[in-house]
Amino acid sequence: MGRPYTFINVAMTADGKIDTFERKGAGISSKRDKERVDRLRAEADAVLVGGKTLLEEQPKLTVKSEALREMRIRLGRSSNPIKVGVATIADIPMDSDFIKAGKTKVVIFTTTRTSKEQLERLESGGVEVFLHDAPRVDLIEMMRELKKMGVERLMVEGGGTMNFELMRLRLVDEITIHVAPMIFGGSNAPTLADGPGLPRDHAIDLHLKDIEKWDDGGALLRYTL
Amino acid sequence: MGRPYTFINVAMTADGKIDTFERKGAGISSKRDKERVDRLRAEADAVLVGGKTLLEEQPKLTVKSEALREMRIRLGRSSNPIKVGVATIADIPMDSDFIKAGKTKVVIFTTTRTSKEQLERLESGGVEVFLHDAPRVDLIEMMRELKKMGVERLMVEGGGTMNFELMRLRLVDEITIHVAPMIFGGSNAPTLADGPGLPRDHAIDLHLKDIEKWDDGGALLRYTL
Repeated sequence: MGRPYTFINVAMTADGKIDTFERKGAGISSKRDKERVDRLRAEADAVLVGGKTLLEEQPKLTVKSEALREMRIRLGRSSNPIKVGVATIADIPMDSDFIKAGKTKVVIFTTTRTSKEQLERLESGGVEVFLHDAPRVDLIEMMRELKKMGVERLMVEGGGTMNFELMRLRLVDEITIHVAPMIFGGSNAPTLADGPGLPRDHAIDLHLKDIEKWDDGGALLRYTL
Repeated sequence: MGRPYTFINVAMTADGKIDTFERKGAGISSKRDKERVDRLRAEADAVLVGGKTLLEEQPKLTVKSEALREMRIRLGRSSNPIKVGVATIADIPMDSDFIKAGKTKVVIFTTTRTSKEQLERLESGGVEVFLHDAPRVDLIEMMRELKKMGVERLMVEGGGTMNFELMRLRLVDEITIHVAPMIFGGSNAPTLADGPGLPRDHAIDLHLKDIEKWDDGGALLRYTL
């Protein structure tokens, strides 16, 4: 396989929303789910987010548990997985948490629509930049480049557009969904998979592996693709 | 309680969609799930759908199983539950399946924005019409009227706007979600709960009662509100 083993992890409401219509990064996960996500991150070689999540939330994407970070180091790895950001125009500030938090390599895939000044800022700040001369980042090519970089296990942490594109291109092996016991509603609220969407006969098939009922009211659905 | 016991039943994809972006009524349920829905219908006094579902899909809402219809009759009920349609402008044709299919009472809640001609057509065709002199049907008042009509157990079969409004108004006791093993994607595809949506601190809380993993790849999540 010319790409990393790729798994999406997502927390959504029972109505499929990953944020409210306000798009301010609403908390959805329970404490227990956050710990599960932290373990998944600790096991990944790299953690990836798409443009909107990168630019609007500027997430840290670091391993929160000190014990897990130390285990990574004992296993000869960086304390945090590589952070991968994907954005057509990578106007992310150099002092953002995405770039600064945690000791690890930061990689950005972007296009020639990002200004030269910004590209220079990113590179002189130690960010590894992959530049695609195309209207959008070529995700298939990106997967090859990540694999070449040594990424065997890639965790995708959103958002809905990135999830959709990766699944549409059949670049995903597994998706784990934490269903939180709440409803946000909103025809404009972001969902697990956004983008343009698919007609019925092109729907992406999933295979249900297992489900869990949690005492905190959450449900966990694990699918392979 | 001045309203019927009200439960929403919905089939959605793993990304929360109840139809594709094309909104042509994409099939989502498995055979086994359709049988489950048929049993739920057979146990209900009335089945309700909102405006878009009513006008675009004109669903039959009848009990498919002859055995279940016969059981209803032995129990002294109509062979099919009462059909309830809710639409601001009730421009539904008299020859639609919603009005014609199955022997049962058909009730429409609408507003004075429906033309007099159409109201007359509906009533002379045997439809019981409740007219609300307001920009939209008053769902709280509707619940009172249904209860007065003898509806003790009301099943809601969508769509996303109706689901959202009923939950927002706290008029729902239970929601059962069949999660089909597929992804439609689409930021414009309808979801389990649409409408304007709620900010995080007004999210509707659910209580997870039980979950089931089905051999056909489906998952069933049952919540109370």
